[in-house]
Amino acid sequence: MQDRPVITLTTDFGYDDPFAGVVKGVILKINPNAEIVDITHGIRPHDIREAAFTIGTNHRFFPDDTIHVVVVDPGVGSQRRPIMVLADHHYFIGPDNGVFTHIYNTPHDILNVVHITASHHFLSSHSPTFQGRDVFAPVAAYLSSGVGMPKFGDLITDYRKIDLPIPFATPEGVLQGEVVHIDRFGNAITNITRADAENVGSVTASSDFKILFRETVVPLKKFYSDAATGFLCCLWNSSEHLELFIDRGNASSQYNISPGEPVRMLRA
Amino acid sequence: MQDRPVITLTTDFGYDDPFAGVVKGVILKINPNAEIVDITHGIRPHDIREAAFTIGTNHRFFPDDTIHVVVVDPGVGSQRRPIMVLADHHYFIGPDNGVFTHIYNTPHDILNVVHITASHHFLSSHSPTFQGRDVFAPVAAYLSSGVGMPKFGDLITDYRKIDLPIPFATPEGVLQGEVVHIDRFGNAITNITRADAENVGSVTASSDFKILFRETVVPLKKFYSDAATGFLCCLWNSSEHLELFIDRGNASSQYNISPGEPVRMLRA
Amino acid sequence: MQDRPVITLTTDFGYDDPFAGVVKGVILKINPNAEIVDITHGIRPHDIREAAFTIGTNHRFFPDDTIHVVVVDPGVGSQRRPIMVLADHHYFIGPDNGVFTHIYNTPHDILNVVHITASHHFLSSHSPTFQGRDVFAPVAAYLSSGVGMPKFGDLITDYRKIDLPIPFATPEGVLQGEVVHIDRFGNAITNITRADAENVGSVTASSDFKILFRETVVPLKKFYSDAATGFLCCLWNSSEHLELFIDRGNASSQYNISPGEPVRMLRA
Repeated sequence: MQDRPVITLTTDFGYDDPFAGVVKGVILKINPNAEIVDITHGIRPHDIREAAFTIGTNHRFFPDDTIHVVVVDPGVGSQRRPIMVLADHHYFIGPDNGVFTHIYNTPHDILNVVHITASHHFLSSHSPTFQGRDVFAPVAAYLSSGVGMPKFGDLITDYRKIDLPIPFATPEGVLQGEVVHIDRFGNAITNITRADAENVGSVTASSDFKILFRETVVPLKKFYSDAATGFLCCLWNSSEHLELFIDRGNASSQYNISPGEPVRMLRA
Repeated sequence: MQDRPVITLTTDFGYDDPFAGVVKGVILKINPNAEIVDITHGIRPHDIREAAFTIGTNHRFFPDDTIHVVVVDPGVGSQRRPIMVLADHHYFIGPDNGVFTHIYNTPHDILNVVHITASHHFLSSHSPTFQGRDVFAPVAAYLSSGVGMPKFGDLITDYRKIDLPIPFATPEGVLQGEVVHIDRFGNAITNITRADAENVGSVTASSDFKILFRETVVPLKKFYSDAATGFLCCLWNSSEHLELFIDRGNASSQYNISPGEPVRMLRA
Repeated sequence: MQDRPVITLTTDFGYDDPFAGVVKGVILKINPNAEIVDITHGIRPHDIREAAFTIGTNHRFFPDDTIHVVVVDPGVGSQRRPIMVLADHHYFIGPDNGVFTHIYNTPHDILNVVHITASHHFLSSHSPTFQGRDVFAPVAAYLSSGVGMPKFGDLITDYRKIDLPIPFATPEGVLQGEVVHIDRFGNAITNITRADAENVGSVTASSDFKILFRETVVPLKKFYSDAATGFLCCLWNSSEHLELFIDRGNASSQYNISPGEPVRMLRA
């Protein structure tokens, strides 16, 4: 165990309620040495897909052995299981509702999933409506204190995956993806990655394709201020996803772009 | 003193200004070992009741000896006193404006309240408009460093309580409470607790009563996804308060519910 | 180096995206002992002036040797340089776009500015769109781990300053400033400081001047609740700036005040 084991939080709790603070209290009561980092509490309420995308694309920036707690859990209190995932050198704790689908879909050396049943590691009076506080927080704290993964329950293989929007090749040789996230700057992030562009049949090199949004070609730039002011452009962003943007503007509000809108890539 | 004494913050500072960050700077300058946790900075501006409810229902999830700083302080700079409260094993620091009323009203073994007058523990040039930074933060930091409670001032007994909405029994044997908080999910949390339901005369067991909101019976569920989609239901929430909700919906916006609306409980 | 070196973050990332969390992950991966404090992530997108004002007026509340990372960076990826500033006992890391202008304009014993070129201290695969994560975070982490400032690049003197609104004396002997920030409470903070009031020709002592806003005299108070309810008043705030407010009200929304509006001070 590290001196200061890192526990991250990714939730839909928002910032105006005490939910995230209380989760931290529970963790520190069990392991005073935990170092707790908010990834975000701004996931849209109950949006499992957004949480899956967020943790899937960002956990790798944290140290090995980091414990990532993800609480976007509309089914809290029902029969859906609490689980713990070890994927290579990162741990993930949360509900078995598909929120770790991105993790499952990434190639690993190791992928172990445990159904958490060790209720002696839960808060003693646990509520059926706030398992983030009563189950996931104490389990993360005990794991960070050195309790081994096998102590929390048995391995399972029937963990739940959800359908995530994946780019697909059309018969005409077009790669079609979609917008999956709008960020604070109004940038529209798609599910098309640079690897997609390189791997999919019709698209062989970055210089050889063009991007279409609403039947219009969108120029590909290297960075934001490389674009002409006021024009919709795109780039490969910091997580290697294709992103539509307007330099110093707000693409999402100016073009009224929402998650789900198609973006297409074809041979130039 | 612990290696990493915990100091929590509950304020109406919001997140877009540097207020909370600066408070943390002041604390760390005095005690570099403090572990600072945000409970929330999203209390509605100047809403002492909301702050009282938040700290009153959540402090118990933190370790013993935690120091809770609460800054919702419309009277800052006036004659209202800065105080320090010890209630059982938790410390509370803030203005004497009633923000600790929930703490006072809870039974304890110990309840000591000190009027903070030790101005040598304040920032040297303190402003009359930001005592969170200039008084409460340094006092919390010195307390966390081992300066004893008696060093900050004398005991008082005339600390201020505010009237908090409390459920009451009507002559017809109905228990009437009200909505006291709307959370991020649009859930409407009332001031009726499970203990109220068990203690108040006409209501003897959870199975024996019904809940009325706007003259309509609201079904009582065990957890959110136990409810039929789209219907207003209620449950005992994670702090044992009665809460109105719509599963995966937003009860507050759909029914236009605000704090202050009555909710009634009567014998079935 | 301290046991727990403090690194602060001031950005326009907001709270709903994982940007700030990922920056913390990168820092902790390099220096697990760093103590990271958010000053705010609520700077308006791309508002370099607001960031300059925020870090300029608040860094002094942090311990000596604190490392302040400021990422408001519309030109990310372009030729604008990453820089590291040492001003007296504080370090500042961010883009050379004028965001440290307040720091430069404050008198110091020491002011050193380095153009950061040591790319072996960047993340190995750095993106041209998120240098907060790929350049500023790791550089801050290595600096906090004991790597000396000269190891990051060479001294420069042609760092960029921006024009910040500064109060000026008109021929009529009036000191004219402007609103520079609206806080969460709707208070309108101006760029007129108490020192301006004391130094500028026509204004010799606080008791001798009056404040004009939209041709109306605004009463000067000592603290918020010193004002009559509902009336626009002003005071010297906790950073010694002149601030317009309404006690327990919202001056900005009630009077529709925005940054840039003039405020004038003249001999009474």
